[in-house]
Amino acid sequence: MNYSIIRYILFRVLEFAALFLTLPCLVAAIYQEKAGFAFAAVMIGCFVVAEIGKQYKPVSTVFYAREGFVTVSLTWIVLSIVGALPFYLSGEIPNFVDALFETISGLTTTGGSILSDVEYLSKSVQFWRLFTHWIGGMGVLVLIIAVLPLSGGYNMHLMRAESPGPTVGKLVPKVQSTAKILYGIYIGITVLEIILLKAAGMSLYDSIVLSFSTLGTGGFGVLNSSVGSYTIAVQVIFTIFMILGGMNFNVYYLLFIARKPKDALKHEEARVYLLMLFGAAVLITWNIRGSYDSLAIAFKDALFQVASLGSSTGFSTTDFDLWPEFSKAILIVVMAVGACAGSTGGGFKVSRVMILLQDMKRELNRVVHPQLVKKTHLDGRAVDDDTVHSIQSYLIIYLVIFISSLLILSLDRYDFTTNFTAVLAAYNNIGPGFHAVGPTCNYGGYSVLSKFVLMFDMMTGRLELLPMLILFSPKTWKKY
Amino acid sequence: MNYSIIRYILFRVLEFAALFLTLPCLVAAIYQEKAGFAFAAVMIGCFVVAEIGKQYKPVSTVFYAREGFVTVSLTWIVLSIVGALPFYLSGEIPNFVDALFETISGLTTTGGSILSDVEYLSKSVQFWRLFTHWIGGMGVLVLIIAVLPLSGGYNMHLMRAESPGPTVGKLVPKVQSTAKILYGIYIGITVLEIILLKAAGMSLYDSIVLSFSTLGTGGFGVLNSSVGSYTIAVQVIFTIFMILGGMNFNVYYLLFIARKPKDALKHEEARVYLLMLFGAAVLITWNIRGSYDSLAIAFKDALFQVASLGSSTGFSTTDFDLWPEFSKAILIVVMAVGACAGSTGGGFKVSRVMILLQDMKRELNRVVHPQLVKKTHLDGRAVDDDTVHSIQSYLIIYLVIFISSLLILSLDRYDFTTNFTAVLAAYNNIGPGFHAVGPTCNYGGYSVLSKFVLMFDMMTGRLELLPMLILFSPKTWKKY
Repeated sequence: MNYSIIRYILFRVLEFAALFLTLPCLVAAIYQEKAGFAFAAVMIGCFVVAEIGKQYKPVSTVFYAREGFVTVSLTWIVLSIVGALPFYLSGEIPNFVDALFETISGLTTTGGSILSDVEYLSKSVQFWRLFTHWIGGMGVLVLIIAVLPLSGGYNMHLMRAESPGPTVGKLVPKVQSTAKILYGIYIGITVLEIILLKAAGMSLYDSIVLSFSTLGTGGFGVLNSSVGSYTIAVQVIFTIFMILGGMNFNVYYLLFIARKPKDALKHEEARVYLLMLFGAAVLITWNIRGSYDSLAIAFKDALFQVASLGSSTGFSTTDFDLWPEFSKAILIVVMAVGACAGSTGGGFKVSRVMILLQDMKRELNRVVHPQLVKKTHLDGRAVDDDTVHSIQSYLIIYLVIFISSLLILSLDRYDFTTNFTAVLAAYNNIGPGFHAVGPTCNYGGYSVLSKFVLMFDMMTGRLELLPMLILFSPKTWKKY
Repeated sequence: MNYSIIRYILFRVLEFAALFLTLPCLVAAIYQEKAGFAFAAVMIGCFVVAEIGKQYKPVSTVFYAREGFVTVSLTWIVLSIVGALPFYLSGEIPNFVDALFETISGLTTTGGSILSDVEYLSKSVQFWRLFTHWIGGMGVLVLIIAVLPLSGGYNMHLMRAESPGPTVGKLVPKVQSTAKILYGIYIGITVLEIILLKAAGMSLYDSIVLSFSTLGTGGFGVLNSSVGSYTIAVQVIFTIFMILGGMNFNVYYLLFIARKPKDALKHEEARVYLLMLFGAAVLITWNIRGSYDSLAIAFKDALFQVASLGSSTGFSTTDFDLWPEFSKAILIVVMAVGACAGSTGGGFKVSRVMILLQDMKRELNRVVHPQLVKKTHLDGRAVDDDTVHSIQSYLIIYLVIFISSLLILSLDRYDFTTNFTAVLAAYNNIGPGFHAVGPTCNYGGYSVLSKFVLMFDMMTGRLELLPMLILFSPKTWKKY
C-alpha cells in the first residue's frame, strides 16, 4: 500500500470539500441564517488542514487498483464526516450519528432520512442536504480528475472505483477528458431542469435544490410530503429528469458530443431500462386502476413511482405503501434491478442483470445443444467470461451483505417487510421502502447499530462493494 | 430427442407406481377402509397400462443428458398425476387441483398442505400421503436403477438428473451399485427410526408413516398440531432423524460400507451443515430465552425448528411464526441454504453455498493480491471453474424463478412476507413459511393460479431446475 499518495489525494479532497461548503455559506448569507457560521467554520477548517497537508508531496507514485479502491472509500468516509459537521454544529440535527446518517444518505444519493420533519430546516442546511446528492451522484473524485492536472496512471483506477457499472467505458481515450465530458453533461442537464422547474412556477431556490436531488437520483425533498403537493407539470418534469438521471451517460455523450444519434438510440442498456420502467408502469396502472377516477392519472402516478424507485431517486407523489401487493412486488423488483451503469443511479444495474440473464440462457442452451453455444453480448460487443464471472461474484457478495444486514436489522423491532425493504432501499441508494420505512415514514426509529449497518450498506452500494470491502482485509494495509 | 426410450421408461415407472400402491391397499385392508377401492382401482389401472405399454421396446438406445432430464421430469409429472388419483377418487380430497398439489407436495418432500384438517383422513390415505415423501426423498428413478437390470449408458444420466447437488458422486464405479447402496442405507435408517419411535411409545402405524415423513425430509404429519403434542423423547428422535435425512448420504457410505470413519468425520459439507444448524439453534435460543422457563427447553425447541427447516422437513413443535423477528430471519436464512447435496433434503444446498462463498473470497483476494489466487476446494478436491460457473448460473436461474413466482403470487390477497416465504418454502421443499402460510396455517387459501405456480416451484426445486426448465425449450423436442 502506497500510503503517501492516498494521504495526498485525501488532502486535495478536503480542499474540494471547502469549495463545496462555500455554496451553503452563500445561501446562509443571502437568507441571513446563523447556520452560516457552522458552514463557515467547517469550510475554514477544511481549507486550513488541506493547505497544510498538501505540502507533503507523495514519496512514490505507485498506484494500483488496490490504492484506487482504498482512496475512493476513504474519500467518501472523510467527506461524510466533514459533511455531517455543519448539520451537527448548526444544531439542526443535534445527534451526530443521525447527522452522519443523513450525510451518507445524501452523498450516496439514497435519500432515506432520519428526520420526521424536514420543513423546519434552515435554507442553508436544506441546500447542503440536497447538494450532497448532486456531489455524490457523479462522484467527487471524478470531479477532481476533471479539474486537477493529476499526472500519473492513477486516474483510471480512481475513475473505475468510483463510477458505477460492471465495465467502465472511457468515452474518450483520456480519462481526464472523459471526466470533464461527464461533468459537462451533468451540469448541462441540471441547468435545464432548473430552468424548466422555474418556468413551471417553482421558486428559484426550490428549482435549484430539487434539481440537485433529481439529477443525483437522490430523493431528499424540501417538504414533508415529498413531492406530492406540486402541480402535475412539475411532477412530469421530475419524472422525466429522474429517468434521465438513471440513464447511462454514454447515451448523452453519443447524442450531444459524438453526435451519433443512431448509436444512442441503439444503446441496449438504455432501451432495456426504459422498457422496464414503462412495462412496470403499465402493469401497476392496471393493478391500481380501481382506486383512480382516471386512467391517465393512475398512469402518471405509476410511472412517477416506477421512475422514482427504478432510477433509485426515491421521491413519492402518493403513499405507494398502500398500493395492492402486486404493485408493491413490481416496485421491489424495479428497486432491486436499479438504474443503468454509468448513471448517477444506484442498484444492481440494468446491464449486470442483462449479462446475467444472457449467460443463464446460454447455460440452458448448453444442456440442450452442447455444441451450439453463443457468446454473451452487450451493445454488439462480446462480454468475456471473466467479466461474466466477476458479475456473478458481484451478485454473491451482494447477497451475502444483504442477508447479513437483514439479520442485524432483525434485532430491531420491525417486521420482515420493513427490514427487507430498508436494506434494499439503503443498499440500492433508493430511500423509502415499505411499512415502517415507507414513503410517509423515516429511518429515525432504528437503533444506532442498525443505522450503522444501513450507513455501511449505502456506502457499499454506492461504491459497488469492492472499495468498502477491501478496507477490511489486513492484506490491503501491508506496506510495499 | 429419442422418444421411444423415454416412453419405455415411463411405462416402467407406472409399473413401480402400481407396486407402491399395493402398500396403501394393504393398509386399507387391515383397517377395512373403503378408500382401499380407490387405491386398488388406480393400482390395477397402472399395472395394466404398464404391462401393455412395455411391450413396445425402444427402437434406439441413444440417451444423452437431454433425454435424462426429460425422462426425470416426465416421470415426476406422471407419478404426481397417478398419485393424486386415489386422493381424488376416495373423495377425501374432492378437488383435483388440491389433490395434485398435495401429491406434488408429498413427492417433492415439501410437506406444505392445502388441508386445514388432516386428522379426518382415513389411515390408508394418510399412509399414502406420507409414503410419497419417502418415495420422493431418494427418488423413484434411483430405485428403478437399483432394481432393474437396465443396460446401456443411461443410468448415469438419470441418476444425475434426479439426485440433488452440484456434482453427483458415484459412491462406487457402477451406477446400479451406487443406487443399491443408497436405497440400502435409506431403508436401514428408516427401520432404525421406526424401532426407536415404537420404543418411545408410539403406535406402529404412526412410527412407520412418521419415519417416512422424517427420513424423506417431507413434513406431512398425522395430527393438525404437526408434532408438538408428542413427548420430548419423540421430539428428540425426530430432531436427530431430520438432521440425518438432510445429511449427505456419502457420509453413511463412508461410515457403514467403506468403513472409513475418519473420512466420514472430515466430510466438509456435513460439518458445515451441522455447524450451521447448531449455530442457528444457539442464536435462536438466546433470542427466545425470555419466553421460556428453562434454557434447555428453549434450546430443544430452537434446535428442533432449525433442524426441521434446515433439513427442509417442515415439522413444527411450536408456532415459530410468533418468535421474534431475529429468530425468524435466522430461520429464513437456514431455509434458503437448505440441506446437503446427496441427501433427501431440499434447498439451495450447503455445498453450493460453500463453493460460492469460497469463490467470492477468491474474487476479493484477486483485487488485493492479483498474483496469489488459490483454487476453490471442496473435500480436498479442486472445484474446476466450469463447476463454479454452473453453480453461479444455477443461482441466477433460481433467483429468476423465485422472483417470477413471487410476482404471480402477489396477485393473491396475501402480504409480502407470506408470499416470499411461501415461494421459499415450496421451492426449497420445506413446507411451512410465515404469516398466512405459517406452521398453524396452510396453502388452501391461494388461488388456482398460485397453486400451480407453487406446484411448479416444488417440482423445479426438487429436480434442481434444469429438468423442468428444458421441457419448455422447443429445441428439446426436436427429433434426431
